[in-house]
Amino acid sequence: MRNLNCKILDCTVRDGGLVNNWDFSVEFVRDLYYSLSEAGVEYMEIGYKNSPKLLKGGAAGPWRFLDEAFLREVIPNKTQTKLSALVDIGRVDENDILPREESLLDLIRVACYMKDVDKGIELAEKFHALGYETTINIMALSHALENELTEALAAIRESHVDVVYIVDSYGSMNPQDIAYMTEKFRRALPNKLLGVHTHNNMQLAYANTLTAAAGGVTFLDASVYGMGRAAGNCTTELLLGSLRNTRYELRPVLAFLEKHMVAMREKWEWGYNVPYMLTGLLNEHPRSAMALRASPEKDNYVDYYDRLTTPELIIGTPAKKGD
Amino acid sequence: MRNLNCKILDCTVRDGGLVNNWDFSVEFVRDLYYSLSEAGVEYMEIGYKNSPKLLKGGAAGPWRFLDEAFLREVIPNKTQTKLSALVDIGRVDENDILPREESLLDLIRVACYMKDVDKGIELAEKFHALGYETTINIMALSHALENELTEALAAIRESHVDVVYIVDSYGSMNPQDIAYMTEKFRRALPNKLLGVHTHNNMQLAYANTLTAAAGGVTFLDASVYGMGRAAGNCTTELLLGSLRNTRYELRPVLAFLEKHMVAMREKWEWGYNVPYMLTGLLNEHPRSAMALRASPEKDNYVDYYDRLTTPELIIGTPAKKGD
Repeated sequence: MRNLNCKILDCTVRDGGLVNNWDFSVEFVRDLYYSLSEAGVEYMEIGYKNSPKLLKGGAAGPWRFLDEAFLREVIPNKTQTKLSALVDIGRVDENDILPREESLLDLIRVACYMKDVDKGIELAEKFHALGYETTINIMALSHALENELTEALAAIRESHVDVVYIVDSYGSMNPQDIAYMTEKFRRALPNKLLGVHTHNNMQLAYANTLTAAAGGVTFLDASVYGMGRAAGNCTTELLLGSLRNTRYELRPVLAFLEKHMVAMREKWEWGYNVPYMLTGLLNEHPRSAMALRASPEKDNYVDYYDRLTTPELIIGTPAKKGD
Repeated sequence: MRNLNCKILDCTVRDGGLVNNWDFSVEFVRDLYYSLSEAGVEYMEIGYKNSPKLLKGGAAGPWRFLDEAFLREVIPNKTQTKLSALVDIGRVDENDILPREESLLDLIRVACYMKDVDKGIELAEKFHALGYETTINIMALSHALENELTEALAAIRESHVDVVYIVDSYGSMNPQDIAYMTEKFRRALPNKLLGVHTHNNMQLAYANTLTAAAGGVTFLDASVYGMGRAAGNCTTELLLGSLRNTRYELRPVLAFLEKHMVAMREKWEWGYNVPYMLTGLLNEHPRSAMALRASPEKDNYVDYYDRLTTPELIIGTPAKKGD
């Protein structure tokens, strides 16, 4: 099947930043941008556009709180590859956002949980009014009730949002689930483009992305070497190497992987392993697995599994010690 | 979809032996057998039944040249988990094979390339006559011509072979390819059970195995932690955790992974990486990638890619130096 309409969105700096606390050098991000440009990748997400005023623990790399003046230093010459930033509900100061014609950014993506979809739409409308392309990324879709989702999609349909994302936050969906969601989104949103963002907890990130593309999803999120939170994402290199679209070239990204990602992977851990597989299988947020991997018990799989699956091992905390 | 008819065949010792030259301790193999038994896995492939007389470089662990007396030491008490061995055409001495009632083995699998299918059938018939369950595993299916394959399947149909395997030797197939092959095999072999053996070069081993199972394939090959040649196989733990069949328990295999596979993976390399992805994308045997990974240039991806894809870099050897 030819993939003529798909667009790759590389989210290495944004989702990978959740691995290394956004500790990317300017050289890394600049090299990534020009490699992706050469490879024909349509979009690069260069970080979060959240406000440090609205978020605790602001000591992170500049990619978490993107600043336009800094961006212009990083990307002195923009190519045809567009730039995007992600914002979270309640963490973005709308006054930080310039009109699109004054910004290096082309696309602003709004990530929200189901309960905040209306806030997400409201925010996306503001970015739309400023001239940006917009997306809504409903996170944790695998925890959504069907009736909530139906209602949310109906509301999004009436908005100016350009792209609506199917987000498998927990890496718990298989290709059948993705095919089901794609079909549901497609029917509910005939006037919108669709996107997909996958995680690799069950080694299905790439397969799920292919399934979505075959079902008509346009925007395909990926990251180089799959660098992203916990089990990581669909790899950019697999998409470049396999999508049937003459626009794409694998070689420039291989050069980037060789120059930057081998050392990055030696320094930071992400990708498939047993604890991340378990949270994927159990359809849970990977946070407990991330905590496990950061502890000396990181390979105590049975104990971890028992804690995840045995109700009497999940006990509450007394209100006061000694009560 | 419920997976009531599937059978997992764990091939860790056999395919994983291609990673570590069959350097498995008796304790490892025994623990694996009893873990798989507890987990409800139906078959364990305990090695090759090739003859050291017919194979150069015989200095490998005992799992490459299985001996019945030794097997009885390793597995003192057989459970409901059946044992299998693989043989290669031209490397097995038929006189080495006892009748099934005198053997610990239940299943003998014959691996052959397309050109040797007739020899494969002949060999399988002999094992069948000795009372064994048999399979034929046609390797490198992605290099087969359709007319050859049609003819081979027609010949197998007339044999006593019990199970016919779809083998993605190079990890180059995607779920669409597997669905196509499954349908082709199913139509050509209505009197046979089918099996699937996948490799993870493109992170599709598990997805391809699910696709095959959904298409009616019964025997699903897998290995713990995916340990197998180059990019490795579908992982046993993913199948145990996700197949809808009340027979399977994940926990015993988690205990095995914790005890044995973390250290094994620190000592030996297998699994997805860029060179294996490239041979998968290019539908090639991974041998050049394996050589690369064993060299100091193991992460020189661009140079390797250029050598794989640039015709003028693939030059012949002069008959005599200096000619």
